[in-house]
Amino acid sequence: MPAAALDFWFDFASTYSYPAAMRIGVLAADAGVSVRFRPFLLGPIFKAQGWTTSPFNLYAAKGRHMWRDLERLCADLGLPFRRPDPFPQNSLLAARVALAGFEGTLGANFRGEDFCRAVFHAEFGEGRRIDDAATIGDLLARSSIDPRAALAAAQSDASKARLRAQTDEAQRLGLFGAPSFVTADGELFWGNDRLDAALRWTKRVANSE
Amino acid sequence: MPAAALDFWFDFASTYSYPAAMRIGVLAADAGVSVRFRPFLLGPIFKAQGWTTSPFNLYAAKGRHMWRDLERLCADLGLPFRRPDPFPQNSLLAARVALAGFEGTLGANFRGEDFCRAVFHAEFGEGRRIDDAATIGDLLARSSIDPRAALAAAQSDASKARLRAQTDEAQRLGLFGAPSFVTADGELFWGNDRLDAALRWTKRVANSE
Repeated sequence: MPAAALDFWFDFASTYSYPAAMRIGVLAADAGVSVRFRPFLLGPIFKAQGWTTSPFNLYAAKGRHMWRDLERLCADLGLPFRRPDPFPQNSLLAARVALAGFEGTLGANFRGEDFCRAVFHAEFGEGRRIDDAATIGDLLARSSIDPRAALAAAQSDASKARLRAQTDEAQRLGLFGAPSFVTADGELFWGNDRLDAALRWTKRVANSE
Repeated sequence: MPAAALDFWFDFASTYSYPAAMRIGVLAADAGVSVRFRPFLLGPIFKAQGWTTSPFNLYAAKGRHMWRDLERLCADLGLPFRRPDPFPQNSLLAARVALAGFEGTLGANFRGEDFCRAVFHAEFGEGRRIDDAATIGDLLARSSIDPRAALAAAQSDASKARLRAQTDEAQRLGLFGAPSFVTADGELFWGNDRLDAALRWTKRVANSE
C-alpha cells in the first residue's frame, strides 16, 4: 500500500490557515496521512480576480463575521488569538524562508513545519508583524539557524523564483483561497472546515490502490 | 429555563442552504433547540455589494470548487444531488409562499418546514425549476393545499411587503450569505459548516440563563 499523501496549501497571511496549520499535524498522524506543507501567495491570485486586498477587507459584513468566527474557533481549539494589524500582513518574506527551508537551502536544523507554526503563532497568537525581518530572524534563531545567512538565502533570485513557481502552480491547480488541500488524485478541498474531509478522502484513495 | 431558540436564515436558491435545511431538523431536536425558518432573498444583499449574480458565477474557480464540494457533501449525507439549471434559480415565488405559510396565511394544513425541504429537494435533488408556479403548486397540492388560492395569497401586496421586510431585517443583522444562523443573543454563524457550532452556542446561552 502506498503512503497516503496530502498537499496543504497555505498563505501565512490567511486567517483560516492559522487553525489549519495548528491542527493538521496531529490529525494527519492519526489518519496515517503524510502532509506536504506548500506555502504560496494569495495576492497574485486575488489580483487576477480583480481584488486588490483581502475579500475580508473588501466586503465589510463578511470581514466582521470572519473575525468573530475566528475568535470563537480559536477559543474552541484552545489557540491564542490576536487580530493582526495591519491585515493582511505581507507574507512574502515568511513564505520565501519557509520554501527555502523545505527545499533544504537552510540546512539540516531547519524544521519546516515547526517554523510555519511558529510564524502563525507569532502573527495570530502574539500580534507580531511577520513582514519584519526581526520577527522571522527571531523564529529562525530559536531553531539554532543563523538568521542573517538564512534571510539572505531566502531572498536570493533562486528563492524568489521558487515562490513564484509555487504560486503559479497553485493557480494552475485552481486554488482561489487558503487553506486548500489537494489529494494525490487531484481533489481540491478549500478551507479549514474541509481538513477532515480531505484526510478521509486521502485515506480512502490510498486504501483502494 | 427558557426554550433555546435559533433563527435559520436561508435563500431557496442558495446551494449550501440545501444540506443545512435537510440537516437542521434532526440536529436541533437532538440539541433541544427550537428553530425558526426565515426565508429571505440574497439578491438585494449581493446587489448592495456590487454583485449582479451569485459569487459562484462571478468567480469561476470558486464556483467549480463549490459544485464539486456540494456533490461530495451530498454523497456523504446521502442526499440526492442535481445541479440546478439555470443557477441561481429565481427564489422569489418559493420565498413568498413559504413566508405566507409560516405567518398562517395558507391555513392549518401548511407545514412550513416540510414545504421548505420539499422545495430544496425539488430544486437540488430532482433538478426542477422552483421559479415555475407549476412546481410550487405541485408541492402545495401534496399537502392538500389549494395551489391556486395559495399562490394568489403569496403574491398579494401584503406578502410581497413581508418578504421585503424580512430581507431588510437580514441586511440589518449583517447577513451577507446563506445559510446563516442567528442566536437569541445576537451571534451570527454563517454557512452550513457552522450549524453545529450555532446549536452548541444556543444551548450554552439557554443553560446559562
